[in-house]
Amino acid sequence: MPDEDGHPAPEEIELGAVLAALADPLRRRVVRDLAAAPQGTARTCSSFALPVSKATTTHHFRVLREAGLIRQVNRGNSRMASLRREDVEGRFPGLLALVAAEAV
Amino acid sequence: MPDEDGHPAPEEIELGAVLAALADPLRRRVVRDLAAAPQGTARTCSSFALPVSKATTTHHFRVLREAGLIRQVNRGNSRMASLRREDVEGRFPGLLALVAAEAV
Repeated sequence: MPDEDGHPAPEEIELGAVLAALADPLRRRVVRDLAAAPQGTARTCSSFALPVSKATTTHHFRVLREAGLIRQVNRGNSRMASLRREDVEGRFPGLLALVAAEAV
Repeated sequence: MPDEDGHPAPEEIELGAVLAALADPLRRRVVRDLAAAPQGTARTCSSFALPVSKATTTHHFRVLREAGLIRQVNRGNSRMASLRREDVEGRFPGLLALVAAEAV
């Protein structure tokens, strides 16, 4: 079962939830930016400067987290998001590459 | 631009539309069934026996068609759906395999 922060275990990551999360262009942007960054990169939600309200940004990150695409951890006063690259690649090989390659 | 039936040209097939189409479990079922069938298989919408109304079935097939995942052609009094396997594979290599492999 998902942990207390709503992160599914690797084997719980479901294709439907991942595809639904990635159907949104802003959420794809977050995943694409993280996929292009060095392994282990962690960023605050606000650093992505999504063109939406703070509440909507929080919602998008929750969808990504609950789908299993990102991990969010508290570090001091900040909540840092990182890509669950190996977990997602292990479940759905090649999917992150398709998102990373999208021309925008 | 899409043809008169709403089929995008191969180069117009967009990742966002494809992912949104595949986010729905019934639409994934259609794609999965077609992907498992021999190349060139064409089926009527009703043959999939989706557990929804005829109008909703029509909607799901329209979403799949407009995303570029399937091609629908009229054959006599029937409207036949086939998977755009090469077009989708050419744009997003490996994506159909992920859908085909989903455990349901």
